Amino acid sequence: MTGPDPAVARVRRSVRAFLDVPEHAGHLRRGELCVAVSGGADSLALTEAAAFTARRAGLRVRALVVDHGLQPGSAEVARTAAGTALWLGANTAEVLPVSVHGPGGPEAAARAARYAALRGALPAPDALVLLGHTRDDQAETVLLGLGRGSGPRSLAGMRPLDPPWARPLLDVPRSTTTAACAALGVRPWVDPHNADPRFTRVRLRTEVLPLLEDVLAGGVAAALARTAAQLREDGDALDELAADLLDRARAGADLDVVVLEPAPAALRRRVLRRWLLDAGVRELTDAHLRSVDALVGEWRGQGGVWLPGHVEARRTHGKLCVVPPEPPTTRGD
Amino acid sequence: MTGPDPAVARVRRSVRAFLDVPEHAGHLRRGELCVAVSGGADSLALTEAAAFTARRAGLRVRALVVDHGLQPGSAEVARTAAGTALWLGANTAEVLPVSVHGPGGPEAAARAARYAALRGALPAPDALVLLGHTRDDQAETVLLGLGRGSGPRSLAGMRPLDPPWARPLLDVPRSTTTAACAALGVRPWVDPHNADPRFTRVRLRTEVLPLLEDVLAGGVAAALARTAAQLREDGDALDELAADLLDRARAGADLDVVVLEPAPAALRRRVLRRWLLDAGVRELTDAHLRSVDALVGEWRGQGGVWLPGHVEARRTHGKLCVVPPEPPTTRGD
Repeated sequence: MTGPDPAVARVRRSVRAFLDVPEHAGHLRRGELCVAVSGGADSLALTEAAAFTARRAGLRVRALVVDHGLQPGSAEVARTAAGTALWLGANTAEVLPVSVHGPGGPEAAARAARYAALRGALPAPDALVLLGHTRDDQAETVLLGLGRGSGPRSLAGMRPLDPPWARPLLDVPRSTTTAACAALGVRPWVDPHNADPRFTRVRLRTEVLPLLEDVLAGGVAAALARTAAQLREDGDALDELAADLLDRARAGADLDVVVLEPAPAALRRRVLRRWLLDAGVRELTDAHLRSVDALVGEWRGQGGVWLPGHVEARRTHGKLCVVPPEPPTTRGD
Repeated sequence: MTGPDPAVARVRRSVRAFLDVPEHAGHLRRGELCVAVSGGADSLALTEAAAFTARRAGLRVRALVVDHGLQPGSAEVARTAAGTALWLGANTAEVLPVSVHGPGGPEAAARAARYAALRGALPAPDALVLLGHTRDDQAETVLLGLGRGSGPRSLAGMRPLDPPWARPLLDVPRSTTTAACAALGVRPWVDPHNADPRFTRVRLRTEVLPLLEDVLAGGVAAALARTAAQLREDGDALDELAADLLDRARAGADLDVVVLEPAPAALRRRVLRRWLLDAGVRELTDAHLRSVDALVGEWRGQGGVWLPGHVEARRTHGKLCVVPPEPPTTRGD
């Protein structure tokens, strides 16, 4: 007896490993597993693996196909995807038509509409929707974050679990999902947008990543995905430590400088960011946080720091506080 | 009276800002500032800025030119660079001839020989050598690190201060050093290696970065440099917290599990890495560290973890210890 095709087996293994994580399994009590299906290779391979894994775990699989209505024939594409999902073992498949409009360009608007429709279809508030993002999608996301230059957080890519979104294929190459579909005998839909060089992500996929693979002698997508995972873990560790330090430093609405001072500056800035956000301060830049942190780490009696929203962070009697700014002193008489 | 050319002013500003940092200034007690000079635009612009800044601070500038002897005419190139450095205001200039051989390819061997010669020329153990690495060099270093995929640390790029190396120009674009040289009326040497596509760094510079700049609509080198700086700060914070936690967890040669357990896993792994390196364990992988950490974070009475060098990390009576592995139990009779 021969086993399943290696690509099919690899996708199934990733889905099973994901569902086996205790934290993830906790979301599966309701006996139903939703899968977002576009009809592309990633989501079809995911559907098969989810159906295979779910059957053994006594779960039902529900395929959710969003019809964005943006391209001629999109309703037909959605119906075909739903049919293929059923054929691959999903227990039910439904098409969710959405109308795409809103801010931030067509890509962002389509994503917002899609995610809203998927959320609306959830059987319970803590249910999960499996998404077919692969290691290659993760690599593209990291490079996009690199371009934004907004620091480690933007390089950390997509999270495997970000309820209700679950991404069990972040360690699976796209070539594996394509091979799995071929082995399963299904022909995935190819979104013409995926070849449109007006989209930054398409150019990263078709031009930048292949060149990087060539110049750096391979393994770039895997390296980017691995780095993203480590950045997430480091970031989460610092966030956890910062939350703990913030709790210890709180003195009513103020912060106790003595508690903050011994911590490394990068940790203190995270604490100050959380504290200022809690106080309603928005549009904080790195420069703001560094100036406020100087009230702790480089204290020489300096004045308060002006922040967006017409407030001031000030140090008085060993405490940091956020206050409306002091009126300017009247000079002369 | 007109001020200096904007590019010249920008390079001078970066050098002055660097030397003004109290931690950096502490290295300048000896009254002498060494600058490594290749004759390229970066190091010539740096030399001028260092001489300008040093004169005001009462320091002497010493230009150090390494002659690698790898290309025909290299001695002449070195002599010219030394002459230009003097013309730009260096107080002294000397050529350090080296012979390049050793492991790791010609690039690595040349770098090792260069750094050894520069170290040998230091007037005092805590003296600094200014290096002309620019923001573009930093961006290339980050991309090289990305390709290695060895995590946040490899993305963190070069440090501004890594004694005896000092890099005041990490926030200055290469185009600025080129413009500064033009304004100063000097013609920098162009290393033919800088255009040789056999070098990975050259292809990153001439192919990958321009494509990324195009696809991501500019600002990529700056974004990479900014991200690297933030990664260094986050990494330094975690290292500092890990050193502190290691101190608190030590129980002789062992580690106290109760002290380690409440810390986030990413922090614990840093502690375990440092502890195992101190114990002489080498070639540790991320998988090793995760297995050892499971003795703390996922304890269910499991056996020890085998590590390179024929040792085992084991948990006994609430302590982690490193020991030679237990002989296998003899089965039967």
